[in-house]
Amino acid sequence: MLNQFPNIAAYQQQVETALSQFAWPEKPASLYEPIAYFLKIGGKRLRPAMLMAATELFGSNPQLALNAALGIELFHNFTLMHDDIMDQAPLRRGMQTVHTLYNTNKAILAGDALFVKSCMLVAQVPTNTMPAVLQTFWQAALEVCEGQQLDMDFETMNNVTLPEYIHMIGQKTAVLLAASLKIGALIGGAITTDAENMYQFGLNIGIAFQLQDDILDVFGTPEKFGKRPGGDIVSNKKTCLQIMALQNAESTQLNQLKDWFNPDANHQPTTKIEAVTAIYEQLGIKEAAQKCMQSYWEQSLTALDKVNATQDEKNELRNFASFLINRDY
Amino acid sequence: MLNQFPNIAAYQQQVETALSQFAWPEKPASLYEPIAYFLKIGGKRLRPAMLMAATELFGSNPQLALNAALGIELFHNFTLMHDDIMDQAPLRRGMQTVHTLYNTNKAILAGDALFVKSCMLVAQVPTNTMPAVLQTFWQAALEVCEGQQLDMDFETMNNVTLPEYIHMIGQKTAVLLAASLKIGALIGGAITTDAENMYQFGLNIGIAFQLQDDILDVFGTPEKFGKRPGGDIVSNKKTCLQIMALQNAESTQLNQLKDWFNPDANHQPTTKIEAVTAIYEQLGIKEAAQKCMQSYWEQSLTALDKVNATQDEKNELRNFASFLINRDY
Repeated sequence: MLNQFPNIAAYQQQVETALSQFAWPEKPASLYEPIAYFLKIGGKRLRPAMLMAATELFGSNPQLALNAALGIELFHNFTLMHDDIMDQAPLRRGMQTVHTLYNTNKAILAGDALFVKSCMLVAQVPTNTMPAVLQTFWQAALEVCEGQQLDMDFETMNNVTLPEYIHMIGQKTAVLLAASLKIGALIGGAITTDAENMYQFGLNIGIAFQLQDDILDVFGTPEKFGKRPGGDIVSNKKTCLQIMALQNAESTQLNQLKDWFNPDANHQPTTKIEAVTAIYEQLGIKEAAQKCMQSYWEQSLTALDKVNATQDEKNELRNFASFLINRDY
Repeated sequence: MLNQFPNIAAYQQQVETALSQFAWPEKPASLYEPIAYFLKIGGKRLRPAMLMAATELFGSNPQLALNAALGIELFHNFTLMHDDIMDQAPLRRGMQTVHTLYNTNKAILAGDALFVKSCMLVAQVPTNTMPAVLQTFWQAALEVCEGQQLDMDFETMNNVTLPEYIHMIGQKTAVLLAASLKIGALIGGAITTDAENMYQFGLNIGIAFQLQDDILDVFGTPEKFGKRPGGDIVSNKKTCLQIMALQNAESTQLNQLKDWFNPDANHQPTTKIEAVTAIYEQLGIKEAAQKCMQSYWEQSLTALDKVNATQDEKNELRNFASFLINRDY
């Protein structure tokens, strides 16, 4: 990947290094150790790297955006730390989550402190851009909270529609990428319409990425997707595939799906995955989901096309976005 | 109280009204209902009222500071909401806490959203004061997290010293009042030294107030203190009284105190309160604690005295601080 996207790869590396060298206060160790631990678990650092690339796109020094980029990454980690508590997740990236390794109280408080620190860093931007940068950041932060709440609400709802689902994933995962690209643009000196187009570029990539994730969870290969397919089916997770299938199924298939997704039933996982996947194939759900994903991908490109910069200057961001979406399966 | 402190009472009322009329988004109701509920539980709104009084002290219109004042109050409520989870507190001001009435996940997430909203409001200050106001706010916010962690750490520590205890209460409760007064001063156009003196005024009042609270919990009367004395003794809570007593006791009394405060012992509450109070009296702990409290009260007045304003202009803030400290017992 390094060869294909030299700038973004360099920013990712710079963010990773800065995070690993971060001088957290020594005391209270019980507050700062969980934070340092969690940041070492790693991550792709996509948002901060794309934020810096957006600053560069508008002809400014991306180093101006490094602190804001680190702030976005800390905010992202704060949301993961609290989401892990809410989801009762024992592991993240194969490592123990903070509430599991330490305890829930420490995970709540370490998350809170991480959020404060993220604000401090995001505010370290050229003074004239500070109000717009912070407004963009906090609006996204609030929507991330709303998206997480909707995701929890959906677990017990029977009739989630596709637009509701896409609204939820937009808030829960895409707005932070959108805000990162807009913030990078603002720091770079972009005019308002360009900053807004960068936001739309990020929002639509984010949605397309999540839809692609849903598709790969069922139709991906373990070698390329990195995990065995079918996890979402086994856990009855609401995904674009499940929602589309329940919406398009005729009565026989609908009854079969309802039986397979009955939370009180105790189906054998492999049988369940095969049966549900077969119904999805009968209904043409893979193609329908890909078409939906493709429409968000196209909207993201349309937004990027409108940005006042040459195609050449936009190439790395466009190709990187394409790389993110077109994971093989 | 209204007659004695007309301005502060008016700001308290204005903050209360603004909070009650706050237009929280309708959706997701599961996120915003817990927030609206918690804000209705009430509170004295001391910090925001004193923030506005600080703005007025420097000759500026206190209405310039209303949004920042509301932000501070929302931040305070965010910390209470998360503290209640960590302390497993079923009630606050006689009403169910958010994690009890709704659930822990909702209390975590509603707290997070409240924190985001508090940042948005605190940032609504004259643009030239924004960087200093936000820096003051976030520094205090981080220290509040540190103080809460120290408080939890102290529960399982045997040898907490008085300076460590005062550092903890300073961070957990006093820095937010200190920051409120400094932010009010900054919005009011105060020079740096005045803003810093307002911070010291608030920090020392906050510490004196908490020490007074410890004293009243043992030596207050139910009629005036509003609750039966001895709660801290029964729960083995580390307070300035307990720490001073353990430090000053000779071997017989020390052994008695260690027995009474043995977490595995199951003492009858009334007997325990009477016995520990008697030892405190033998050791002159009430007077020692009052002397300690008095020294912080004097430091707060010294800081206020240094502020560039007439005694007359400073009168209401000084008298109000005195009123806060000199609760009868």
